[in-house]
Amino acid sequence: MPPQLASYKKLLARAREVALLSSAADALSWDQETNMPPKALPYRAEQLAWLSGQAHRRFTAKKVGELIAECEQHNFAPESDEAANVREWRRLYDRATKVPPRLVEKMERTRAHAREAWRAAREQSRFQLFKPHLDKILSLTRQMADCWGYGQSPYDALVEGYEPGMTAGALRKMFAELRPAIVSILPAAVERAAAVPADLLRGNYPVAAQQAFNRKVAEAIGFDFGAGRIDTTTHPFCSRIGAGDCRLTTRYNPQDFTQSLYGVLHEAGHGLYEQGLAQEHFGTPLGSAVSLGIHESQSRLWENHVGRSAAFWEHWHPVAAEHFPELKKFSPAQITAAVNRVSPSFIRVEADQVTYDLHIVLRFEIELELVEGRLGTADVPAYWNEQFGRLLGLKVTRDADGCLQDIHWAGGAIGYFATYTLGNLNAAQLMRRALQERPELDEELKRGRYQTLRSWLREKIHGQGSRHRAQDLMRLTTGEPTVSLHQIHYLRNKFNG
Amino acid sequence: MPPQLASYKKLLARAREVALLSSAADALSWDQETNMPPKALPYRAEQLAWLSGQAHRRFTAKKVGELIAECEQHNFAPESDEAANVREWRRLYDRATKVPPRLVEKMERTRAHAREAWRAAREQSRFQLFKPHLDKILSLTRQMADCWGYGQSPYDALVEGYEPGMTAGALRKMFAELRPAIVSILPAAVERAAAVPADLLRGNYPVAAQQAFNRKVAEAIGFDFGAGRIDTTTHPFCSRIGAGDCRLTTRYNPQDFTQSLYGVLHEAGHGLYEQGLAQEHFGTPLGSAVSLGIHESQSRLWENHVGRSAAFWEHWHPVAAEHFPELKKFSPAQITAAVNRVSPSFIRVEADQVTYDLHIVLRFEIELELVEGRLGTADVPAYWNEQFGRLLGLKVTRDADGCLQDIHWAGGAIGYFATYTLGNLNAAQLMRRALQERPELDEELKRGRYQTLRSWLREKIHGQGSRHRAQDLMRLTTGEPTVSLHQIHYLRNKFNG
Repeated sequence: MPPQLASYKKLLARAREVALLSSAADALSWDQETNMPPKALPYRAEQLAWLSGQAHRRFTAKKVGELIAECEQHNFAPESDEAANVREWRRLYDRATKVPPRLVEKMERTRAHAREAWRAAREQSRFQLFKPHLDKILSLTRQMADCWGYGQSPYDALVEGYEPGMTAGALRKMFAELRPAIVSILPAAVERAAAVPADLLRGNYPVAAQQAFNRKVAEAIGFDFGAGRIDTTTHPFCSRIGAGDCRLTTRYNPQDFTQSLYGVLHEAGHGLYEQGLAQEHFGTPLGSAVSLGIHESQSRLWENHVGRSAAFWEHWHPVAAEHFPELKKFSPAQITAAVNRVSPSFIRVEADQVTYDLHIVLRFEIELELVEGRLGTADVPAYWNEQFGRLLGLKVTRDADGCLQDIHWAGGAIGYFATYTLGNLNAAQLMRRALQERPELDEELKRGRYQTLRSWLREKIHGQGSRHRAQDLMRLTTGEPTVSLHQIHYLRNKFNG
Repeated sequence: MPPQLASYKKLLARAREVALLSSAADALSWDQETNMPPKALPYRAEQLAWLSGQAHRRFTAKKVGELIAECEQHNFAPESDEAANVREWRRLYDRATKVPPRLVEKMERTRAHAREAWRAAREQSRFQLFKPHLDKILSLTRQMADCWGYGQSPYDALVEGYEPGMTAGALRKMFAELRPAIVSILPAAVERAAAVPADLLRGNYPVAAQQAFNRKVAEAIGFDFGAGRIDTTTHPFCSRIGAGDCRLTTRYNPQDFTQSLYGVLHEAGHGLYEQGLAQEHFGTPLGSAVSLGIHESQSRLWENHVGRSAAFWEHWHPVAAEHFPELKKFSPAQITAAVNRVSPSFIRVEADQVTYDLHIVLRFEIELELVEGRLGTADVPAYWNEQFGRLLGLKVTRDADGCLQDIHWAGGAIGYFATYTLGNLNAAQLMRRALQERPELDEELKRGRYQTLRSWLREKIHGQGSRHRAQDLMRLTTGEPTVSLHQIHYLRNKFNG
């Protein structure tokens, strides 16, 4: 056995050990959100810090860098499993080791305080309370970008942490096409929505009935309850806490079953990705999701392209009416119209499918201006409110409904928002391709049959893990990198067609 | 600072790190029993093995032995925190290091197979399937006892693992008094039970109503739901998975609310002990339970001395009747009689308060005969069936209802059963003392007020952790070591009085 192969084996063992520690921490975090009694918090924080610290230390050890270098010398065949893992280990190792521990710790402390300040600022709708923290976050973020290094813009180094290979330049081009297109689609979409009362579906939907119906839908699209579950939290999420263990959460509104239903479809979309990763590669890049923009494409595809389609309600209306007798009085078309109502609003997480990306366009532009130094933090509220008026035609009167609504910046996540829109673009692009390659899909979706679509996604996306870089994966699957075109066509067709 | 003090600080830090790892494993084990989807099992086993292995390795390191020796040189004041921790660390370290890793691993493998074989043997009621595994377990257990060392009997080295300081000789004496006393109490107790139909309380008790009632009772006795919770499992247990986090489980029978109620009272008794341990000493002997026999005394005290008393139903009958309207037709006295029905039966975990300890007497005698070499494993069924007939007057016709009913031996736990009876003896002895020292208790228990009793137990038992050895703790609290006398008086008074 050549020495390089021994190095690879050692790296593999180390990666699996790190995954074991991280997944144990993920399991404890899941428990914290779902089950943990409040007085357990301080000790749970200690357990999590120890586990994450150990995982970090074991992955960033000098020895790991040496083993990666040895593997790089070996020149594995470009298409081999080994080459893909080594490529990703290198990227992750560099990213984890290029920032000095002192700076990482400073950022950790700053984030903790910034989140507290953000909560208070949002509650009182006073941006001034948050501004000094945003200044610190921004300054540290820039220092970290300098450590990581970048080509054109420090933003490139930031988005790389969420969407490897993506750049400010590429995003700017996508958003430049997307922004005017959505603005042009919006008026007719809003006009059409006027025909549907906003509270059409408002009614009495017992939580137990919602749970039973959601489970049926999740099972139908292929979420494996033998390797997962659904629990209740205020902020829904999907977390894979080990091989064969992927857990979703949702929240229930007894007056509105669509909140939990679309929440479950969204999270189950993430869950299908996680369950479709190659189990034998768990803990290595080949068994891990490739990027947030690809991950979000899976949740959006099932939530919107499948779940908010006319075909969906054609099939599911009778089943839903069994669980919710109130729905008997509506036609499938009425329900479809109600769950696709377009109406500009202040809060991103409540936005409809058309306006959603305008919320992201705004955040992306502000982040870019901040990071590249053309906008001062003091000017964020004014900039936000002005642009929001232009994009959505609404006047922001409270920062809590404007630039203070999201926790991301307080958590140090600058460069993250763009991946939400990448998810939407990728979803439209992948769904279009799936319909081209599997013409039977049109008919199957009307009959509530999802296996062809799921298998296609599993083959093309889920099972690939991080074998290819995200944009290479898009090219291999759809023939082109992520573009705005298909999302624009999709929205125009659906909301203006 | 003298060097010994530095050694102590190092030991303290190591102990806390080991506790952090063990408690993370405990949290994952709790999740495995309550929430985990089935396909997650293989990876969860890997996570648990890693965490337990690391905890073991970090505690058994040679350095730890050196630090303990340095602390022992220091001669801490006998009553000091340090002296108690060092004494217990020594005991735990010796116990963990005296058995060679090879033997530990062999036992682990043997246990895993023995449990499988036991399940099959019990299902088919064929002792022969289990016998070869019991032989191996017994042989390895004896080898481990030789490694640990003992005074009179190899059994001493085994019981030491569950009840430090206890010996075969002391137990033999207790059981020699207990056995004939119970046998003499039994006939009149059975006769009295004949007046109460076995299915008196059988009815329709929705699980949600049981959960609500159980929660009220658990809150009333002082279980802190801000630092704990109750979930559902087939086999009820109590597990402290971190500071401020103690979780109980129970099971529900919709025809019989008493199963979950007394299950919760039992586990909450364990839980009050865990919640009453000094939080600031978490992860050290001073913050840990002292022995299984003391632990079980807390569960038995709340389950039986409180929960199965006439005073309990005097107070709780109206509340219970709100949750379970069917109970309105009974008087508190009728319910009390029904939950105290004495009737010899085959299965230990279903036994009443009088016959329960006879089940343990039998197991203790068999274990002693096996370990001391006077009984061969082939003769266990015949010995069991003959003694069972003498003690309980029932003829065992299936080994599944006899010597195959418990998993303990298959799990390598020989010397464990005695702690159940120690729990009963300690409970009677502690309760008697509490009533002497707090005469107001009699009246308070009738009014459903439990704070005096809980505070007394917290002061005398819970808050002490492992400051004193178990028998020293009994002496300090009750003036004598564990004896059979008080349990005998209690049973005679309650069931023949």
